Amino acid sequence: MNVAVVGAGLIGQAWAIVFARGGCDVRLWDGDQQALDSALTLIGRQVAELENQQLLLDAASVMSRIQTSASLEHALSGAQYVQENLPERVALKQEIFSKLDTLSDPRAVLASSTSSIPASAFTEHLAGRHRCLVAHPVNPPYLIPVVELCGAPWTDESAVEKARSLHASVGQKPVIVHKELEGFVLNRLQGALLREAFRLVQGGCISAEDLDTTVKDGLGLRWAFMGPFETIDLNAPEGVQDYCNRYGDMYQSIAREQTSVDAWDAEIVADIEQQRRSLLPKAELLDRRLWRDARLMELLRLKNA
Amino acid sequence: MNVAVVGAGLIGQAWAIVFARGGCDVRLWDGDQQALDSALTLIGRQVAELENQQLLLDAASVMSRIQTSASLEHALSGAQYVQENLPERVALKQEIFSKLDTLSDPRAVLASSTSSIPASAFTEHLAGRHRCLVAHPVNPPYLIPVVELCGAPWTDESAVEKARSLHASVGQKPVIVHKELEGFVLNRLQGALLREAFRLVQGGCISAEDLDTTVKDGLGLRWAFMGPFETIDLNAPEGVQDYCNRYGDMYQSIAREQTSVDAWDAEIVADIEQQRRSLLPKAELLDRRLWRDARLMELLRLKNA
Repeated sequence: MNVAVVGAGLIGQAWAIVFARGGCDVRLWDGDQQALDSALTLIGRQVAELENQQLLLDAASVMSRIQTSASLEHALSGAQYVQENLPERVALKQEIFSKLDTLSDPRAVLASSTSSIPASAFTEHLAGRHRCLVAHPVNPPYLIPVVELCGAPWTDESAVEKARSLHASVGQKPVIVHKELEGFVLNRLQGALLREAFRLVQGGCISAEDLDTTVKDGLGLRWAFMGPFETIDLNAPEGVQDYCNRYGDMYQSIAREQTSVDAWDAEIVADIEQQRRSLLPKAELLDRRLWRDARLMELLRLKNA
Repeated sequence: MNVAVVGAGLIGQAWAIVFARGGCDVRLWDGDQQALDSALTLIGRQVAELENQQLLLDAASVMSRIQTSASLEHALSGAQYVQENLPERVALKQEIFSKLDTLSDPRAVLASSTSSIPASAFTEHLAGRHRCLVAHPVNPPYLIPVVELCGAPWTDESAVEKARSLHASVGQKPVIVHKELEGFVLNRLQGALLREAFRLVQGGCISAEDLDTTVKDGLGLRWAFMGPFETIDLNAPEGVQDYCNRYGDMYQSIAREQTSVDAWDAEIVADIEQQRRSLLPKAELLDRRLWRDARLMELLRLKNA
């Protein structure tokens, strides 16, 4: 399988690693030649680290499958799948998808990594709009495998299916979002939980630190290897229907207190910022991100075992 | 430290294990002598399994610290902390707390495992109401360490602090809930996420299976070792304030579509039940629960390492 990765920033680099690790031949292109050169160096470092961490087998062979292209035409030549990673601006997406649609093999599937722009906003007027969709990763996709696939109303099911099949074949976990939704699914779920989290801290019910503990030493443990439906399915003797019969009234009653949609106000955001900084000074944010990635790698090894 | 565990069902058994594993001397009592006898056998089996799983060091010494008491008086004698685990009925809680308050050392802290009844509903008229609180575990507490501590308005801070200190000393992760809230904190967070999950499946946006994948291979990975606040704190260059500046508008916009508080209707519950049963037949629920516990043990070993 030949894959073109368009845009060589952090997300583009990560996609190149994912596809090459999965056995695809990858051509990476960026409008900025300097960015393209340094991307290959950064990819090499990350691939070596993943080999160290036993999250890929053979760094040299992965690197041998990644080449940079001096022109977009070269990158697209022979590609059956294109993953686009330009900045999050509609005009940029429109412009690049117009080029991709013109220059690529008409049978290729064209996917955007956008987290915030629906495919319908940048593919409507394209001859090949039926083969365009969003394939939204979580950063970095070589550590967090879910990818949300979401077409426009005119996207062919076969294009979504080709994308699904490719992502599954390289070890990602594709999910299909059937309607264009703000935030797709992952951020909508995160938003629902965050809103209640802000509400509880703002109401003086719990500290930010204890709220985090409630998730990381409680609620989040099962969610790391089961989703919320499987969790409740296993939490009542007869499954999810039984669970809803037992606890539906409680959750409905709680929901009546969870309806506010006000913006997170400056005061509560500043309060949580202050609580976080007393737990983790700003100067230590970077180290803590490295710690997070190390833990994600351990968790991935555990789940792969 | 001497701990009395009152009620020898699943939760009482699990608490006996937690406190004995943590070095406390535990006396276990139940009104039903037969239940009490079989509890000790079941505890022995579970303690052996935890030793096999390297989640406790010395099964024999743990078991040597657990004894059953033929009378409530004997169980309470010398106890500095009492953990009550009777069925979830207000009248039962009122009756047992009245006894506990009368029979225990007046300096002992009295805690209930209730998940749904606030301490104010069963302690108001007690002479020792200042020493009573809820200590709500997640089942089983020897695998899921968070415990929510929530007093009534009249509970002394020192009683909450004694409970916090004891739970922390035996390796649990106590959090303090400062107001009596339905569902405490954990179930309120779970409810907020579940509500959006039901809404998305009901709206035809995603299948139950793909929604679970979005969490277990995406959102839930970081939450297994960081809470939601730390997660967003690390997801913008300058921390949580920066994150809210960047993404607050998106979450507010999403929130406007997340306001329904209708009961989960029979149709969507039946639909999800059907989707779950096609993924996991009812006959396999028990095996899958054992799989879940094995994964929780692996995750706990990873986090303890």
